[in-house]
Amino acid sequence: MADTRTQRRRSGGRAGAAARRGAAVIDQMPWNPPINIDHPTEPLPPEGVEAIHDGAMRILEEIGIQFLNEEAIAIFREAGCTVDGDIVRMGRDFVMEMVGKAPSTFTITPRNPDHTIEIGGKRLLFGNVSSPPNYWDMEIGKKVPGNREMCRNLLKLTQYFNCIHFAGGYPVEPVDIHASVRHLDVLYDKLTLTDKAMHAYSLGKERVEDVMEMVRIAGGLSHEAFEATPRMYTNINSTSPLKHDHPMIDGCLRLARRGQAIVVTPFTLAGAMAPVTLAGAVAQSLAEALSAIALFQYVRPGIPCVIGTFTSNVDMKSGAPAFGTPEYMRATQMTGQMARFYGLPLRSSGVCAANVPDGQAIWETSNSLWAAVQSGTNMVYHAAGWLEGGLIASPEKFIMDCEILQQIQRYMQPELCATGPEEIALDAIRSVGNDGHFFGIQHTQDRYTTAFYQPFLSDWKNYEGWEVAGGIWTAERAHLLFKEIIGSFDAPSMDAAIREELADFVARRKAEGGAPTDF
Amino acid sequence: MADTRTQRRRSGGRAGAAARRGAAVIDQMPWNPPINIDHPTEPLPPEGVEAIHDGAMRILEEIGIQFLNEEAIAIFREAGCTVDGDIVRMGRDFVMEMVGKAPSTFTITPRNPDHTIEIGGKRLLFGNVSSPPNYWDMEIGKKVPGNREMCRNLLKLTQYFNCIHFAGGYPVEPVDIHASVRHLDVLYDKLTLTDKAMHAYSLGKERVEDVMEMVRIAGGLSHEAFEATPRMYTNINSTSPLKHDHPMIDGCLRLARRGQAIVVTPFTLAGAMAPVTLAGAVAQSLAEALSAIALFQYVRPGIPCVIGTFTSNVDMKSGAPAFGTPEYMRATQMTGQMARFYGLPLRSSGVCAANVPDGQAIWETSNSLWAAVQSGTNMVYHAAGWLEGGLIASPEKFIMDCEILQQIQRYMQPELCATGPEEIALDAIRSVGNDGHFFGIQHTQDRYTTAFYQPFLSDWKNYEGWEVAGGIWTAERAHLLFKEIIGSFDAPSMDAAIREELADFVARRKAEGGAPTDF
Repeated sequence: MADTRTQRRRSGGRAGAAARRGAAVIDQMPWNPPINIDHPTEPLPPEGVEAIHDGAMRILEEIGIQFLNEEAIAIFREAGCTVDGDIVRMGRDFVMEMVGKAPSTFTITPRNPDHTIEIGGKRLLFGNVSSPPNYWDMEIGKKVPGNREMCRNLLKLTQYFNCIHFAGGYPVEPVDIHASVRHLDVLYDKLTLTDKAMHAYSLGKERVEDVMEMVRIAGGLSHEAFEATPRMYTNINSTSPLKHDHPMIDGCLRLARRGQAIVVTPFTLAGAMAPVTLAGAVAQSLAEALSAIALFQYVRPGIPCVIGTFTSNVDMKSGAPAFGTPEYMRATQMTGQMARFYGLPLRSSGVCAANVPDGQAIWETSNSLWAAVQSGTNMVYHAAGWLEGGLIASPEKFIMDCEILQQIQRYMQPELCATGPEEIALDAIRSVGNDGHFFGIQHTQDRYTTAFYQPFLSDWKNYEGWEVAGGIWTAERAHLLFKEIIGSFDAPSMDAAIREELADFVARRKAEGGAPTDF
Repeated sequence: MADTRTQRRRSGGRAGAAARRGAAVIDQMPWNPPINIDHPTEPLPPEGVEAIHDGAMRILEEIGIQFLNEEAIAIFREAGCTVDGDIVRMGRDFVMEMVGKAPSTFTITPRNPDHTIEIGGKRLLFGNVSSPPNYWDMEIGKKVPGNREMCRNLLKLTQYFNCIHFAGGYPVEPVDIHASVRHLDVLYDKLTLTDKAMHAYSLGKERVEDVMEMVRIAGGLSHEAFEATPRMYTNINSTSPLKHDHPMIDGCLRLARRGQAIVVTPFTLAGAMAPVTLAGAVAQSLAEALSAIALFQYVRPGIPCVIGTFTSNVDMKSGAPAFGTPEYMRATQMTGQMARFYGLPLRSSGVCAANVPDGQAIWETSNSLWAAVQSGTNMVYHAAGWLEGGLIASPEKFIMDCEILQQIQRYMQPELCATGPEEIALDAIRSVGNDGHFFGIQHTQDRYTTAFYQPFLSDWKNYEGWEVAGGIWTAERAHLLFKEIIGSFDAPSMDAAIREELADFVARRKAEGGAPTDF
């Protein structure tokens, strides 16, 4: 506890006005989505890019994708694709023409326009963990089903941390809320507890339409204003191999027609639902994603689409999924090369197989986050809070991940590598000479407050100082911070009339019975 | 414990002949030092490289380096450098001419020639933690001074893990052995417990000469054979700012004259013993290293030299050193660009400030190890086992780090990114179609045993399986493995006559009083 108190005192002393709000529990970096200034790591030679592209195109031309959605089938038929039952085959000319209509960059404007995000190009954005059915924290000490309070707490972390740029799906499934109305309660919580870019699950038309309406209300927008520029997004997975299900495509079509953004992320575990060879798994993933993106571009040319990758592998001994492995890293980098080939923004993820926020969790997560950086990923899903292959959300892991994310944000600041005369500092070196040190000199005094990354969770005390402060391991320090942040959380401001309108909408839709639960 | 037993059973079943030896506690990757196939991450534009080079050269020309070594001073004077007391100034033409004589790649051949390492080019080599005065393990549960048994155990890990390619300095200082004879006992332990490339501390002529003699004896070599090709190396640090002390230079000169390899690694903490700006800290580090390398090349043209980097920063609030930070990563990458500019192999390190093997330890270590990869580092010092900024060695951390190192080794296998027809796997994708899975098909069956990285420490079981197996966090799993590995360790074979000759040498030198302790 002492450790955390020290940090609080520290930040309280420096943060000025912000210290009056709970937001000053830690001294975090400002909102400033990083620009990825590194050249991506590109393991594929040009002929490798061509081979994977050709593989993806041949899958689309010769094997085809199953679309369990009659509307999609009709559209593909109209577009001149070969439709055989619910299998659609499409030529590469059609696919490339459609994909070429997608913008390489676009924005999503949430209810707080200061949190508008630009997706594509060299932007690197982080989102919270999404969709685990279970929750783990150090106080509970075991895996338990998620509930609304846990979900709300993770949403508070999503809002609190400036290095989280968009709100993904539910950070944990609140299974204490009936599935028919869960989207209403959680979206109410999300829209009131956060003001960052919002996501809708594509799980049937009622949910998608309800969420769009709630995002519109929360933004104080007319229907026209809502549709004029992306205000939110959805993310869909294919049902690998080579299949898109009904509700996912339906939800995307609804969002596309109203000008909202779409992320298509096949989940291809090599050796299970995709070939055991990475190039094959990537080619299949691309085929699945591009077929859907082609559909959406045909329906609404220029609609923002992001290509997602989630190619990992299974443990071939046990069938267990593996995350953050060398294979995961290379598949992500390869997909990054392909996304640039297609001119599409890229989504990947922060992942691990570990069950608790320990060393394994961090090497797997670090591997996946650095792979996101190296691949040129634009949207990093699950960037904070994920455990057990996505089956557990953890607030300690969330906070630990945010320390890594902040370091990536800092790593991307170009001034670290500046080489002007002031940075080469020959005069400073001359003044210190062969004796003495740089602590007190003017060159240091002028820069020391901003020269280096300041962690909020890493403990840089020596062993003895750390021991005196309680000898607290990282996960427990994160737990203490979690309690402090939640205890002093201030929700972002919202106009009372808008809040009332949102609440009325939720009440009315609940009275109407919510959404069907037969998905 | 159950977890570890499972792994043992597994590896016992597969490892065949090796299972008869203790070496089969885990199923580890084979000895195969990785080739770094990635293009390095290069944050400096060409003019940035030029600016740092110019800064380093101006330090050498205008400010000068203090050499607290009369022999070095005399050599520099003979070489035509400007000598002012013990300050040496040298022109860039001289420095570049001398540095140009150093080979870009070379080998070190230890007593087991199968463990010969090639240093330079795209080789990526890992060494054990070196020189912490203290030790921590989960059984002791606190920081304690190192002793010979701890040192021997860490040497056993150094030998055991195939991903450790060279033996660095003492993996922990055995302070229970008197300093006058410590080098004799530890080198005896190192040479009998390991057969990997050997290091000598440059701490006075007696130690260096003793270690060279012991390495010669252990290799069964004549004096001529010992000197014909590098059999060992030393690593020295400068005394920043801009100073080289007597024993370090003396040791290097002794090794250089007998054809052994030299690593020069300034330890420049930005804001303390180097400028607060990274470019200045890197320029100063380069000047310090290049001045010594120029000296060694003048004395023995073509002697293998490695340029090391250890530019990190201090916490400007507390003065505590920071490791594995964004600044550390960028400084390492920048130094990598400069090492390629000078045509010298590069050394960097695996580092952290954390006091125990927890989440922080792993994000700091992962940052530094990936920076080593991205910078094109050839020798990664302290790659396994380092805690508390190098003040603690830990066997749990050693084993955890080896899991990361193995993943880097796997990551560098080119077959991961192969894109031939067999890897694109169109026929396999066609055969599975839109239903079913890839588990049982021939394409998978032919490849599944080698398709994916198999961890020895990561636990990929789901939460329930992990809980049944004891719910053991990573560091504790590593501790259990540590006990198993040490308990069943078989030392590499050594000819009895050689072992006796080594023991006799140690006994004789002890009788002579060992080495002075007035350093």
